[in-house]
Amino acid sequence: MVSELDAICIIKKELRVESGFEDAECIPYKGKNIVATTDMLTEGEDFPPGLSYEGIGWNTVAANLSDLAAAGAKPIGVLVAWGLPREIPPDGIRQIAAGMSSCARAHKTRVIGGDMNETDKIVMCGTAIGVARYPLRRSGAKPGDILALTGKLGASAAGYHLFWSKKQKLTLTEEAIKKRFERPIAPTQLMSELNLRGLVHAATDISDGFAAAVHNLCSASGTGALIEYIGLPFFEGVEEFCKKSGKSPLELINLSADYEVLAAIPPECFLAAKRTAERHKTHLYEVGTVLKKEVLLEKDGKISPLSCNGFFHFR
Amino acid sequence: MVSELDAICIIKKELRVESGFEDAECIPYKGKNIVATTDMLTEGEDFPPGLSYEGIGWNTVAANLSDLAAAGAKPIGVLVAWGLPREIPPDGIRQIAAGMSSCARAHKTRVIGGDMNETDKIVMCGTAIGVARYPLRRSGAKPGDILALTGKLGASAAGYHLFWSKKQKLTLTEEAIKKRFERPIAPTQLMSELNLRGLVHAATDISDGFAAAVHNLCSASGTGALIEYIGLPFFEGVEEFCKKSGKSPLELINLSADYEVLAAIPPECFLAAKRTAERHKTHLYEVGTVLKKEVLLEKDGKISPLSCNGFFHFR
Repeated sequence: MVSELDAICIIKKELRVESGFEDAECIPYKGKNIVATTDMLTEGEDFPPGLSYEGIGWNTVAANLSDLAAAGAKPIGVLVAWGLPREIPPDGIRQIAAGMSSCARAHKTRVIGGDMNETDKIVMCGTAIGVARYPLRRSGAKPGDILALTGKLGASAAGYHLFWSKKQKLTLTEEAIKKRFERPIAPTQLMSELNLRGLVHAATDISDGFAAAVHNLCSASGTGALIEYIGLPFFEGVEEFCKKSGKSPLELINLSADYEVLAAIPPECFLAAKRTAERHKTHLYEVGTVLKKEVLLEKDGKISPLSCNGFFHFR
Repeated sequence: MVSELDAICIIKKELRVESGFEDAECIPYKGKNIVATTDMLTEGEDFPPGLSYEGIGWNTVAANLSDLAAAGAKPIGVLVAWGLPREIPPDGIRQIAAGMSSCARAHKTRVIGGDMNETDKIVMCGTAIGVARYPLRRSGAKPGDILALTGKLGASAAGYHLFWSKKQKLTLTEEAIKKRFERPIAPTQLMSELNLRGLVHAATDISDGFAAAVHNLCSASGTGALIEYIGLPFFEGVEEFCKKSGKSPLELINLSADYEVLAAIPPECFLAAKRTAERHKTHLYEVGTVLKKEVLLEKDGKISPLSCNGFFHFR
């Protein structure tokens, strides 16, 4: 079997697109850019058993908005193509739509339409459309930039695992992790404002995991990076979850698709960026610095290469 | 099981969208409209066995462009989310991409990116994005308008059936039908120009079949229509195919998803519209007239209600 990256490589070559299959695609239009992105989510792979219908709808919309956030684009509408098995009850359909609607509202946008199909399992394919004068790309980071995260890590991977474990009695923190998995918020508003104010050099979402995001951003920018383990913000209860499950937090966040953005911010802009985040009632977490070459991790005083094991299909 | 129309009704109510799940959705932007549409196609349901990988790629793009054509929008880009089974050979992936690329080029647009997923069967979900100052809608037809089709009917349903029949020795016309099924062309260029020149009152694609298209357009416009059977343009060999298979041509075109558009054109504009079609090396076929109330069919001198049996999922 071909790997996901090889498959994308074959497609990009044939379509002659250089930046395709990144976070979002840009179409120059009337002095701005229309930014569009599509994300397919499937039962089992993205929707674990036990995830509510509302959670399915919410995640479909959030996954797509997350790609717009990485581009610093302001969302103007979402479409969803539904693939439903014929056994689904009418109220399940209503709840999925309700989840979509709430998620779009939470991100100040709307689901404006879509398409209906019959499939064996639930397959939801969203498209988010946004606008930005200068969309952010993975390229553009400069040595000395501060690497910042728009939110905490690990709730996605830990939540996914908790759903699959089908555990009945959950601790309070486990409940919080599952809740965050069901209703993640992408930083569309914050990233679109940071971009509008010119405070960001480069950005990417972390849908293939944290380390992959760092490597993608560095490779597109032709830079390296130093990540400081002590600065990594873990979602409440994630470290406790890791202790129990025998995984290291670093392994966990490489498996996760937390809908957060990794941004390279020039040091002279970082205070302004932090103030902007505060106004959005959120936080920017400083996790490292852009270097000239190598991609490194500092943990417990030791520096080593940051290994890149993200989540990929066909493995 | 809920019907497709009921499912869409539940979703539209929950999302509070009135026109959603029509041909394409519009987002007002800078004095124009961004027109976006999404269409999911699946192995078995939309891609019959024996359809080439190139045909899969081509149809994915054409189905989405067809919705833009109905809105009279000029395409500016296409995204595709790929769901692939892990057994697919690398060259199959390449051929699907090549089919997409050729189809986009034939419609003067590009596939700019997408998303990659693992699925049990092939699931391709496209999104086409276009622009129009005044997007066409299903509503707006007026009594007296001429109903016209942008191309011939039946190749889609007959081609689909021929693929499924797995017949080895095909006649020349059967070969032509299969070829048309594999590489349909949507009238994006023609419809976008007709719309730009203000020659069309209302339009819809005929993805749910011809009769459903007539009923949809009439119901949205609050009108009726008289369809003249003798004016219906059948693709070469379709009537012969119908004789052999025991289906009536009218049944057949109600099952088909020919990527053509049904347009309501004021009589005083029809000559100009026909000239425009000629310049695009294509043809507008006059198939009926918009009436005040009933939706009727005239065949062999007899007038009867036009029955509406389109293709729907979950049946």
